[in-house]
Amino acid sequence: MPSLPDRLAGIVGAPHVLTDAGTLAGYLTDWTGRWTGAADAVVRPRTTDEVAAVVTLCAAEGISLCVQGGNTGLVGGSIPPAAGDAPTRLTILLSTARMTGLDDVDVIGRSVGAQAGATLDAVDRHAAAHGLRFGVDLAARESATAGGVVATNAGGIRMIRHGNTRSQVLGIEAVLADGRILRRWSPLIKDNVGYDLPGLLTGSEGTLAVITKVLFSLVTPPEATTVAVVALDRVAAATELIAAASRRGLVVEAAEIMTEAGVDLVHAHGARRPVAQPAPFEFVFEVSGAGAVDEELLAAIEGIDGVLDAVAEPGPAQALWAARENHTEAIARSTTTPVVKLDVSVPIRALPEAFDRLHAVPGDLGVECRPILFGHVGDGNIHANYLDVPAADVHRVTEAVFAVVTDLGGSISAEHGIGRAKAAWIRLGRSDVDIDLMRTLKTALDPHGLLNPGVLFG
Amino acid sequence: MPSLPDRLAGIVGAPHVLTDAGTLAGYLTDWTGRWTGAADAVVRPRTTDEVAAVVTLCAAEGISLCVQGGNTGLVGGSIPPAAGDAPTRLTILLSTARMTGLDDVDVIGRSVGAQAGATLDAVDRHAAAHGLRFGVDLAARESATAGGVVATNAGGIRMIRHGNTRSQVLGIEAVLADGRILRRWSPLIKDNVGYDLPGLLTGSEGTLAVITKVLFSLVTPPEATTVAVVALDRVAAATELIAAASRRGLVVEAAEIMTEAGVDLVHAHGARRPVAQPAPFEFVFEVSGAGAVDEELLAAIEGIDGVLDAVAEPGPAQALWAARENHTEAIARSTTTPVVKLDVSVPIRALPEAFDRLHAVPGDLGVECRPILFGHVGDGNIHANYLDVPAADVHRVTEAVFAVVTDLGGSISAEHGIGRAKAAWIRLGRSDVDIDLMRTLKTALDPHGLLNPGVLFG
Repeated sequence: MPSLPDRLAGIVGAPHVLTDAGTLAGYLTDWTGRWTGAADAVVRPRTTDEVAAVVTLCAAEGISLCVQGGNTGLVGGSIPPAAGDAPTRLTILLSTARMTGLDDVDVIGRSVGAQAGATLDAVDRHAAAHGLRFGVDLAARESATAGGVVATNAGGIRMIRHGNTRSQVLGIEAVLADGRILRRWSPLIKDNVGYDLPGLLTGSEGTLAVITKVLFSLVTPPEATTVAVVALDRVAAATELIAAASRRGLVVEAAEIMTEAGVDLVHAHGARRPVAQPAPFEFVFEVSGAGAVDEELLAAIEGIDGVLDAVAEPGPAQALWAARENHTEAIARSTTTPVVKLDVSVPIRALPEAFDRLHAVPGDLGVECRPILFGHVGDGNIHANYLDVPAADVHRVTEAVFAVVTDLGGSISAEHGIGRAKAAWIRLGRSDVDIDLMRTLKTALDPHGLLNPGVLFG
Repeated sequence: MPSLPDRLAGIVGAPHVLTDAGTLAGYLTDWTGRWTGAADAVVRPRTTDEVAAVVTLCAAEGISLCVQGGNTGLVGGSIPPAAGDAPTRLTILLSTARMTGLDDVDVIGRSVGAQAGATLDAVDRHAAAHGLRFGVDLAARESATAGGVVATNAGGIRMIRHGNTRSQVLGIEAVLADGRILRRWSPLIKDNVGYDLPGLLTGSEGTLAVITKVLFSLVTPPEATTVAVVALDRVAAATELIAAASRRGLVVEAAEIMTEAGVDLVHAHGARRPVAQPAPFEFVFEVSGAGAVDEELLAAIEGIDGVLDAVAEPGPAQALWAARENHTEAIARSTTTPVVKLDVSVPIRALPEAFDRLHAVPGDLGVECRPILFGHVGDGNIHANYLDVPAADVHRVTEAVFAVVTDLGGSISAEHGIGRAKAAWIRLGRSDVDIDLMRTLKTALDPHGLLNPGVLFG
């Protein structure tokens, strides 16, 4: 019997089966540096049929499979279990790095098919060449992949306008745990024939099937947008401004909030401040509409208590977006230890209290660390970052954040998923019946538990 | 052992268990008159706990269960199998007619919880009292229920603006086939903790669980809308106008097309024609936006080839909406036999050809009948009605319509679901692997096949 690498080479070609420890290392540690796993081989298929053959081999031999796209996930969902944690069986990491194909854009139907490994940026540029846009956008757009954003049901900057990734998925192609290929693929806006399998696979984090290709809907970008950076003394002013702009008929394209500490980090690296003075909060607000959008926006801003200053200019206004675009990188550069990054959401009404209580977590615990909060304020989504947390206190900080969020009726995962990072806490967000039903689905689709073991259910 | 009705009466109270044949008849024939089923009892619970007790009884005794909301479905999905078709076991029809409770509106979070039997109109009026709106709207709003629109993933008039029902479902409460209560209930816009169970149950047509309550998101209605009725000589002009209006920054609130034959039926019953002359197509187009919406809309209309006439006025403009609102009723009143009603969708690019070919079906088959087509043109959704089809030709007309739609890459069910009516044709829309996976899910959630037998899979 040939070895596992030889059998994989027979499917994808020898150059695309990696077993050298040094090469594997780059695949087996995640972007945050918090998760390192073990695998017997990395396999890089090019086609859906190759994926199906790999999965069929795994099914026959009881080999575990972890799928990895851009490796920019933030919850360890595309890293296999560590050697000590792994079940005693072979494990493959399947990289979609070579599956970057894009179909022709359907301009009238506003859709495009993308292989799982195509980056968001590639999908968006492909759409832009036809006057369209991909409705999902996030700062890691040059590395995050189509398969990855679907597997995690990513949110991002444009979710307030176009909905989550799930709502952009018109069709899906995936390899089931037994190697069969599911293809539900029609560019129809309405297609009520049975269960929403694309929606079920979206957000399933690689635990139900291997997503190989996605049919995305595309959006028509507005002809003109106005971007404002608004300095605020309170969080509530941002949500009030969103409501006021909507009432005036403006379309909210993005609504991002940052705190003084985070904005200061960005400016420490040289970017010019768009507003005159540092403020407790900076709000990046992009709107579109018919008519005099800038005037309508300024009129809306004038009516809001808590506005300290505002500057606006026509989109894309990259200078106004710079502080938000560079936020995650500025945070990463300002420390040498892994950042505790917790992506959470709360009801809109609870946002002000959530900011206060999440800022207070280090003081409450007596842990020396720096909280940097920012988020998609229109969605109730806060990215809570804690820098320089002593290793011994990571668990305590995490638990304290989840306690605040749970107390406020929020979610321990807004848009990054559960992965390995939050699997131990899934019961904070779901009832026993709910988790049992999810396990029933997992068992029905992957009876031998080969797909992404350790993710989601722990 | 007490009888089945007595045991049900022990759960819901004797007045709420119906067994009299005359009373049952009203529940056992659908609105279209095409479907009649058989049941041993109708049970009308008030609470989720009562539903759970009923389902637990069914599970213990192997009793089939069909759930019925407003009984306005168009594919027989809330009618149990006919006596001859039924499996040889007892069958209960569970009516949600008494489950009409509405929670307080969460104004800031823009959401509301509704029991399954609350009508769309009741949900919407409840929301309107707080300046909000329910994003799902359809002509049968006074009888269609929250549970029904969720079970069928209804589309409707506002889908082009707010998405399908699935995208309005923030949370769900349902009784599983073994009687346990699933409750995923949080008013969060982002909540990526595991599989999308609300999305899976939405559109499952009563085959996976009994939906008892839904947490809907609500939308902020625009402050001002403009409604136009545009007379057109071609379908493509409508899709071009939608695109032109969007490019100008207008928000499309509704986009409904009707044909001359259908508009004539409405006017035969007395309504005044808004446009000067009969035209091949009448397009009802509602838009909103900031600024001078009416001027922008008229400018958009001016640039479109194929426009014969147009009238516009500020919303709600009930007179301009009247022909569309009264369409289904006018069709029903103009014939004495059941109408062959086929809800289909095609890619947007194929809409003009679809109208032509669906109009030609009677001539192609040599069947004497009257086609009346109308639809939600922005979604590619056509409601194909054929009036006065001889009973012997119903199957042929249906097959011919599905052949056209399939040939154009469309769907045999756009927004009404599969129900009983289309179960025999499900393979036209889904692959073998897809159907097998759906059956796997059905078996996992309802291993004894008690929930809505005969629906979806036939």
